[in-house]
Amino acid sequence: MSLIGKEVQPFQAKAFKNGEFIDVSEESMKGQWSVVCFYPADFSFVCPTELEDLQNNYDALKELGVEVFSVSTDTHFVHKGWHDSSEKINKIEYAMIGDPSQQISRNFDVLDEESGLADRGTFIIDPDGVIQTVEINAGGIGRDADNLVGKIKAAQYVRSNPGEVCPAKWEEGTDTLTPSLDLVGKI
Amino acid sequence: MSLIGKEVQPFQAKAFKNGEFIDVSEESMKGQWSVVCFYPADFSFVCPTELEDLQNNYDALKELGVEVFSVSTDTHFVHKGWHDSSEKINKIEYAMIGDPSQQISRNFDVLDEESGLADRGTFIIDPDGVIQTVEINAGGIGRDADNLVGKIKAAQYVRSNPGEVCPAKWEEGTDTLTPSLDLVGKI
Amino acid sequence: MSLIGKEVQPFQAKAFKNGEFIDVSEESMKGQWSVVCFYPADFSFVCPTELEDLQNNYDALKELGVEVFSVSTDTHFVHKGWHDSSEKINKIEYAMIGDPSQQISRNFDVLDEESGLADRGTFIIDPDGVIQTVEINAGGIGRDADNLVGKIKAAQYVRSNPGEVCPAKWEEGTDTLTPSLDLVGKI
Amino acid sequence: MSLIGKEVQPFQAKAFKNGEFIDVSEESMKGQWSVVCFYPADFSFVCPTELEDLQNNYDALKELGVEVFSVSTDTHFVHKGWHDSSEKINKIEYAMIGDPSQQISRNFDVLDEESGLADRGTFIIDPDGVIQTVEINAGGIGRDADNLVGKIKAAQYVRSNPGEVCPAKWEEGTDTLTPSLDLVGKI
Amino acid sequence: MSLIGKEVQPFQAKAFKNGEFIDVSEESMKGQWSVVCFYPADFSFVCPTELEDLQNNYDALKELGVEVFSVSTDTHFVHKGWHDSSEKINKIEYAMIGDPSQQISRNFDVLDEESGLADRGTFIIDPDGVIQTVEINAGGIGRDADNLVGKIKAAQYVRSNPGEVCPAKWEEGTDTLTPSLDLVGKI
Amino acid sequence: MSLIGKEVQPFQAKAFKNGEFIDVSEESMKGQWSVVCFYPADFSFVCPTELEDLQNNYDALKELGVEVFSVSTDTHFVHKGWHDSSEKINKIEYAMIGDPSQQISRNFDVLDEESGLADRGTFIIDPDGVIQTVEINAGGIGRDADNLVGKIKAAQYVRSNPGEVCPAKWEEGTDTLTPSLDLVGKI
Amino acid sequence: MSLIGKEVQPFQAKAFKNGEFIDVSEESMKGQWSVVCFYPADFSFVCPTELEDLQNNYDALKELGVEVFSVSTDTHFVHKGWHDSSEKINKIEYAMIGDPSQQISRNFDVLDEESGLADRGTFIIDPDGVIQTVEINAGGIGRDADNLVGKIKAAQYVRSNPGEVCPAKWEEGTDTLTPSLDLVGKI
Amino acid sequence: MSLIGKEVQPFQAKAFKNGEFIDVSEESMKGQWSVVCFYPADFSFVCPTELEDLQNNYDALKELGVEVFSVSTDTHFVHKGWHDSSEKINKIEYAMIGDPSQQISRNFDVLDEESGLADRGTFIIDPDGVIQTVEINAGGIGRDADNLVGKIKAAQYVRSNPGEVCPAKWEEGTDTLTPSLDLVGKI
Amino acid sequence: MSLIGKEVQPFQAKAFKNGEFIDVSEESMKGQWSVVCFYPADFSFVCPTELEDLQNNYDALKELGVEVFSVSTDTHFVHKGWHDSSEKINKIEYAMIGDPSQQISRNFDVLDEESGLADRGTFIIDPDGVIQTVEINAGGIGRDADNLVGKIKAAQYVRSNPGEVCPAKWEEGTDTLTPSLDLVGKI
Amino acid sequence: MSLIGKEVQPFQAKAFKNGEFIDVSEESMKGQWSVVCFYPADFSFVCPTELEDLQNNYDALKELGVEVFSVSTDTHFVHKGWHDSSEKINKIEYAMIGDPSQQISRNFDVLDEESGLADRGTFIIDPDGVIQTVEINAGGIGRDADNLVGKIKAAQYVRSNPGEVCPAKWEEGTDTLTPSLDLVGKI
Repeated sequence: MSLIGKEVQPFQAKAFKNGEFIDVSEESMKGQWSVVCFYPADFSFVCPTELEDLQNNYDALKELGVEVFSVSTDTHFVHKGWHDSSEKINKIEYAMIGDPSQQISRNFDVLDEESGLADRGTFIIDPDGVIQTVEINAGGIGRDADNLVGKIKAAQYVRSNPGEVCPAKWEEGTDTLTPSLDLVGKI
Repeated sequence: MSLIGKEVQPFQAKAFKNGEFIDVSEESMKGQWSVVCFYPADFSFVCPTELEDLQNNYDALKELGVEVFSVSTDTHFVHKGWHDSSEKINKIEYAMIGDPSQQISRNFDVLDEESGLADRGTFIIDPDGVIQTVEINAGGIGRDADNLVGKIKAAQYVRSNPGEVCPAKWEEGTDTLTPSLDLVGKI
Repeated sequence: MSLIGKEVQPFQAKAFKNGEFIDVSEESMKGQWSVVCFYPADFSFVCPTELEDLQNNYDALKELGVEVFSVSTDTHFVHKGWHDSSEKINKIEYAMIGDPSQQISRNFDVLDEESGLADRGTFIIDPDGVIQTVEINAGGIGRDADNLVGKIKAAQYVRSNPGEVCPAKWEEGTDTLTPSLDLVGKI
Repeated sequence: MSLIGKEVQPFQAKAFKNGEFIDVSEESMKGQWSVVCFYPADFSFVCPTELEDLQNNYDALKELGVEVFSVSTDTHFVHKGWHDSSEKINKIEYAMIGDPSQQISRNFDVLDEESGLADRGTFIIDPDGVIQTVEINAGGIGRDADNLVGKIKAAQYVRSNPGEVCPAKWEEGTDTLTPSLDLVGKI
Repeated sequence: MSLIGKEVQPFQAKAFKNGEFIDVSEESMKGQWSVVCFYPADFSFVCPTELEDLQNNYDALKELGVEVFSVSTDTHFVHKGWHDSSEKINKIEYAMIGDPSQQISRNFDVLDEESGLADRGTFIIDPDGVIQTVEINAGGIGRDADNLVGKIKAAQYVRSNPGEVCPAKWEEGTDTLTPSLDLVGKI
Repeated sequence: MSLIGKEVQPFQAKAFKNGEFIDVSEESMKGQWSVVCFYPADFSFVCPTELEDLQNNYDALKELGVEVFSVSTDTHFVHKGWHDSSEKINKIEYAMIGDPSQQISRNFDVLDEESGLADRGTFIIDPDGVIQTVEINAGGIGRDADNLVGKIKAAQYVRSNPGEVCPAKWEEGTDTLTPSLDLVGKI
Repeated sequence: MSLIGKEVQPFQAKAFKNGEFIDVSEESMKGQWSVVCFYPADFSFVCPTELEDLQNNYDALKELGVEVFSVSTDTHFVHKGWHDSSEKINKIEYAMIGDPSQQISRNFDVLDEESGLADRGTFIIDPDGVIQTVEINAGGIGRDADNLVGKIKAAQYVRSNPGEVCPAKWEEGTDTLTPSLDLVGKI
Repeated sequence: MSLIGKEVQPFQAKAFKNGEFIDVSEESMKGQWSVVCFYPADFSFVCPTELEDLQNNYDALKELGVEVFSVSTDTHFVHKGWHDSSEKINKIEYAMIGDPSQQISRNFDVLDEESGLADRGTFIIDPDGVIQTVEINAGGIGRDADNLVGKIKAAQYVRSNPGEVCPAKWEEGTDTLTPSLDLVGKI
Repeated sequence: MSLIGKEVQPFQAKAFKNGEFIDVSEESMKGQWSVVCFYPADFSFVCPTELEDLQNNYDALKELGVEVFSVSTDTHFVHKGWHDSSEKINKIEYAMIGDPSQQISRNFDVLDEESGLADRGTFIIDPDGVIQTVEINAGGIGRDADNLVGKIKAAQYVRSNPGEVCPAKWEEGTDTLTPSLDLVGKI
Repeated sequence: MSLIGKEVQPFQAKAFKNGEFIDVSEESMKGQWSVVCFYPADFSFVCPTELEDLQNNYDALKELGVEVFSVSTDTHFVHKGWHDSSEKINKIEYAMIGDPSQQISRNFDVLDEESGLADRGTFIIDPDGVIQTVEINAGGIGRDADNLVGKIKAAQYVRSNPGEVCPAKWEEGTDTLTPSLDLVGKI
């Protein structure tokens, strides 16, 4: 069974954020919308562009009340080291969680046991800590953070308007569908 | 561990396609690229718009050498019944697989055991039958089939150009990255 | 051991009845006599004629204080879709239970695990929720709902007249047998 | 799962037939159609009328190529004793199988373990030894052997005409349905 | 270990006695001496002569305060049927217990699991429900009820005269042995 | 299940016979009829009279082709010691088996595990080593060896005349019954 | 681990002593020093001489406050029988325990399971029921009871003089060693 | 069960003998008679006098073809150290086996698991490596090696004269008993 | 996982120290810094020089508030014996623990199960009984106790100055590093 | 049991060495002497000084035929990133192994499961891949690589001169001890 509809499992970790080391836990992913973005390894290739792309959307996401967390099985020390070294990573303002114990990656079912690295998984979590969307790509296929904004708007709309549903391709402001028995087999 | 990089597991099923009942198996998902789109139930609300959206991209996907399969735990009889009843579904030309034994939904880890219905999962499978991307949304959040085309192009590029990687937001024709030791920590 | 004399096991389900979606449970099968009629699949062949035949006897059954439930592993959405599409099914006034989780079919020992579909089983249940008769036919052999009425009358007579027994071919108004030691070996 | 579609399991037993003790086994139930009629106890009340009713239909059943077997957990000695004592039973020409080891009753899932007696189950078995219909009534509700003839004709028709199906209430000579895709949702 | 010295295990059964059906249990075998006589099958060959022989001793046994029970795995219905049919059995006045659930035969370790019939075992039980003697013969070797009377007298004497023992061949009125240390190795 | 109809299980033991120590095994109980007589303890009370009684019948038994074995859990040394000390035991000519390892007593289900002594069981074994009769008495109730002769004659008659059966009270020369279907319920 | 330093395990048994049968248990081996002498079998060869030898030392042992028990897996009846028959055994005044249930022999780890007989083990037990010495000889090698007296004196001295130790060959009245650090490596 | 009659189990160890370190194994205890003498600890109190006493008997034992081994859980290094330090131990000429792995002490069932030290056990082993006598004393009670010589002579006599047995107190040259049936109960 | 950071497990033992036998336990290793030095065997080759070297550093260690314990699987008796015999060992003033039960060696993971001897492991334990350093050498490679002093000073400095860390080659008085975020990747 | 004397277990990993990514396995640690140095984390505090210190001894170690490997659970990508960023680390010429799967750290028993980081363990491995020394320090206590050179010389001397042993504090050129029996207890 997928993780959709499941609450984030407990964890304890250190993260690097804004030049500081901070403590994060599953509680940090509650009370606001969260995007959690796993990637395999600091100082590797696709990752910086994906993380940079996420940073570029960070302001838009924050306006939507979304907090962003990146996670790899590297330590928070390495996140700082990478932040210092890489021009793209240096821009990052969101929390970069270190998961050397592999606990968080295992909790989100994205740990590759053989390599000890995380798959490229992105999760949207609602303010109750419940996972709303999962997206995982094989190595080499980059993620596009722009879609995240759209998905979050749809998820927020569904949460705010129980009883209505978003059709495919829904965009903010367009009509949504309100389910009723008459619609069965008619749409 | 996620299903990324895993081969599709064996199954036997009936599908409705182009006015006929056909046999499908895991072999049907090899030899070309495949998109497999799970949804909870025929004659329900969001589903038709998602499936219609997928149909609208069907020609584009076929040009890229991609075959499309939709799957629910309804029977192939019901798929035909729905196809006959619903204007949107009536347009569908790709194979609608019936999974009343729930085997395929279980194989792809998207079966909700309590309800007996599938989560809204979309999978891109390469010509070797290996899963390249997974995307799953909670009920109510529609999927946008347009992204699928972009993801498949990226996946195909990576497969055709081993040794290069697609950065985030990659689009056909833009530059990709060729990994080399010098790039470590420099991007 | 057969299910004869066993009480209906607990379940929770949705049904389509009279243009509405309703909740049903094992409690819905208590307090009056019930007929529960399993069949494999909506939008398939024998099924509609059997269900229509049952509908044709519905008034007679209701006069006997009997409620009728049909069950397949299709969803209640599909039942509505079928009800809208099929002339025969459209006549149906009794509750059509959706059992996509396969729980009810398993409880009544009529689930074919390989196909995920129910066998063609008919059950008469007394007002205490206790199964009084079971009848199951292989695919292709239709059931005749007329017999149901006779069986129910016999079952009701036995319940109302403890100590008497119905001989074979018993019909309302004919003599029944009252067991006594003298009858042993004499009938 | 019900016994429908399952082959009769092996057994060895003695039966009383036509004034003789004969050996019967699961092989005796192959090569022709068979009706197997379980009942709780010799020298009890409803049973003789049911068995007499079955005898009255014996000629009709034999014309359809059907062999009849009655089974209780009494011995073949008792069957003979009952045959000698009871006017109704004395007419019986079919084989009365003794099942004191309870093996056959267990094989057909009709043994009540607490009492050591069989439920009132009737089974139609095709020439391959495969169970086609099951009917079981609680104590006191007599069975009507007339229905058996109709059911067997339907079962024989389905076997002889693969690809056609009998609608409910089918009687010899009336039209049957030949399944085709066009009929889905149309009947 | 043999059943000698063990108390009769609990059971519930129906018996035929003096033209009536009565309830019997292990309690029926307490408060007086009991003879329990198992035999394989009603309407079989040796059995009637053994049971008749037991009936011929019934008055003598009752004078000794002994109740008699015969047991087979036939039902109490069959016992009545046999009692009606057989001249020898018709004389029987003691309780004929029906054991179709095989529980009593199993409790007394005389059930032949393969045939479902009881071995020819005779048990003497004292007023505390404790088994004092066991005798079992293979099929075909008849039992002689006369010996029972002698055995019961010996058993009653031992019970009434604790501290004395009956030598072999003891008959009522002859000397018994009172054990004392001096007798060791001297008899 | 009783030991009736079971073959004697393998054992190795020493016996005292005719002033010598001899080896005995289950093979010693084949090829002729055997009586095996268990008793609790040498130098105890009832036992000598029972064993003397058996000796008094020894010639009659030998004429019938029967060998006699007594068994206790005492050693063969003790059997010799008792034979030397006791007037009654001194007459014994049959083999007195020592069973200190308790194996034979366990094989014949007569070992009382708590005391380590054998119950008073007598077994008749046919020339194939198959147990034909079992008789066990509680302590204090002596056995009468005279009955043994009658039982053995009956057992031998049944073995020599397969198809006939001995009614109760059968004595040599009287009529036996030959089972036929006509006798069912008629005797 | 050997039994040295272990307390005697509970048991219940009968013994022959001074012309009477008495009850003995593990409690009988507490409150005074005890010698327990196992041997294989009454009426066998070495045993009488060993037991006679033990009797010859019985007065000396009693003066030391020692009680003596002999044990074999024979019954107390046999002990009496042997006592009556054998000149040597007839002298014995100590308790001869019967262990036909083999419990005591098993408790002292001297039971040969195959033969059901005890090994020739001698145990010295202190007033707390704790085993102080064990001596076991193979069959044929007689024990010399004289040594027992010496061993018991040594054991009693050690118990009465905690902190001193007896060197080898210690005899009453000679010097013992009082352990002190200075003696290490110096003796 | 005791170790009497069991073969020495395999082991590998180092010993100190005659100023050298040698390898010993269970094979060293075959081909001649052996005495194996366990003791708790080098440099402790009773031990040296016991080992000295054994040395004093060494010549006598060797004349009887007996090899002597002492064993403690100390190493062979410690044995040499003790041999150098202690006047009494310095006389020892037999092999002093080191058993720091505790394997030999465990094999002979004399290891006290809590302290890691061996009980004071002495074993006589015949030339086939089979244990003939066991003697174990609690701490503080010294062993007398003189008895060993007598025991070994008895053991050798029994081995050389199969069919004769040594009575208790047997000494070289005195009469032994040859077992015969006549002696039973007569000695 | 290594033992670093784990608390010493409970044990009970005897040690030789300053001409006396004393009790030691895990509590003896708390309240001050401890060095625990395992070695294979008393009276062996490298060991004395290592232990002498440790003694030579004993005063320096004591000034640092460190207690020293040596441990082998020899007994405390042997430690005294060795202390008396060896010139080098005779100098030792610290506690020499005897571990014949092998418990302590097992607790510190240095027991070689095959030989029953300890590996050459040295442990530094802080005043809370927590292991701070482990060093183990194969046989033949001697340890240099001088390093211990340096290591202990470093360990004590870290304990006294939480938040600072000792770089490699740290010696008393030189600068240490105080970790701060700015140092990451900069040292 | 410690890892001393055990062969390195198989593993597969990537390392950064001399500006390249190379494959390493347990085979890389055979054929020459190896030093394997675990540390918790790149970009942390003590670690760089320890690794620098090791680099400073690298030439000396190579002259002794020793290869050096550092290992942390960081990836080889991170090792390169750190090598680029840190002045001290930039000097390193030996292979820096990435162990993100934690396999090597687990093999050497230095993985802290809770943090996912390695303890500060240093191992010397001989040319057969057998571990000769282990040294592990708690966090904060730096290691001194100078000692390594001395230890390796001692280890090499022992390997080249079997039969001699190095006393504590051994340095190249000083005398070693050749073990002989005479030395026991004399050094």
